[in-house]
Amino acid sequence: MAAPIEFYFDFSSPYSYLASESIEALAARYGRTVEYKPILLGAAFKVSGLRPLTDIPLKGEYSRRDFERSARFAGVPFVMPDPFPISSVAAARAALWIADTDPDRARAFVHAALRAFFAQGRNIADTVVLADVLRRVGVDPERALAAIQQPDVKDRLKVLVDAALARGVFGAPFIFVDDEPFWGHDRLPQIERWLARGPF
Amino acid sequence: MAAPIEFYFDFSSPYSYLASESIEALAARYGRTVEYKPILLGAAFKVSGLRPLTDIPLKGEYSRRDFERSARFAGVPFVMPDPFPISSVAAARAALWIADTDPDRARAFVHAALRAFFAQGRNIADTVVLADVLRRVGVDPERALAAIQQPDVKDRLKVLVDAALARGVFGAPFIFVDDEPFWGHDRLPQIERWLARGPF
Repeated sequence: MAAPIEFYFDFSSPYSYLASESIEALAARYGRTVEYKPILLGAAFKVSGLRPLTDIPLKGEYSRRDFERSARFAGVPFVMPDPFPISSVAAARAALWIADTDPDRARAFVHAALRAFFAQGRNIADTVVLADVLRRVGVDPERALAAIQQPDVKDRLKVLVDAALARGVFGAPFIFVDDEPFWGHDRLPQIERWLARGPF
Repeated sequence: MAAPIEFYFDFSSPYSYLASESIEALAARYGRTVEYKPILLGAAFKVSGLRPLTDIPLKGEYSRRDFERSARFAGVPFVMPDPFPISSVAAARAALWIADTDPDRARAFVHAALRAFFAQGRNIADTVVLADVLRRVGVDPERALAAIQQPDVKDRLKVLVDAALARGVFGAPFIFVDDEPFWGHDRLPQIERWLARGPF
């Protein structure tokens, strides 16, 4: 079996959400699986000097329009959440903690949390909302919310973010296929070509 | 006949070059023409606070790789020019001046200048190179190089750039179809859908 597709994303990234809705089907068509790697874009922004899209003059306005149009183009339900962006650290830690014991459930949680935020506009930085999302995918929220306060889980996220930066990750989604980097949901066509025919 | 597609671009923008190689054929399939509007990204960067892609930590390295891979994906010849980016003001003024009397030749010049820079790595900010590109598309280089020093041509570019900023242009290529904004060569699939089936 060929190496899994590595999908670096931020729970507060609209284009990560859009790509997450098709990457697994795309991977499966070519005998691949997807490894979700939650990161914190804020840490990448500190290195690159970039800022959240919606904070940038001119680009901010366009990006809100583009999120919605790109979602319609992809046939994916989308609402612009408010507040946006949010802190995604709790969701990211929870995803890592769940993956330790149950990778399939972690995948379900990734989708449930992204959809809660971007399809239903629910603020997953809010502990009550996050607890509800956890419960819906069969995770005990009390255990999860306690676990993500533990130093080892915090450290694991930090290590993952540092490793991402060391690999050149500056935005999300940031997808590696056979160690080849692809940034953005708009690179899915190039990823498909790579999967179908190899390096180009 | 439906309104022309407005194609804002910078002569120093790799993704503008990539899109310029397919936008006319795309437009023609749907009974449209393309109006090339040369702008100066530097002016947009002053408003947005953005910088040339290749100057941004992490993103810069990726972008060079992505220019080349995206060109291969599109089947368009590409070499990473050095120096890059360059001042595109002379080429932009020349394009506007030629369009005054001969829009078809202006279009030929746009392609010739973009290809000189991005397919042959020739620095079109250099007067000798620019003169050669002008000559090859049948424009008298001496007349053109004199014309682009005239206040009326300089003003025309300034007005065009200001109008672009007022419309929210922050990057290139920036393409309007029926006044709907699309940023980036990776929005060509959305543009095609718009042309084929109207607003979505």
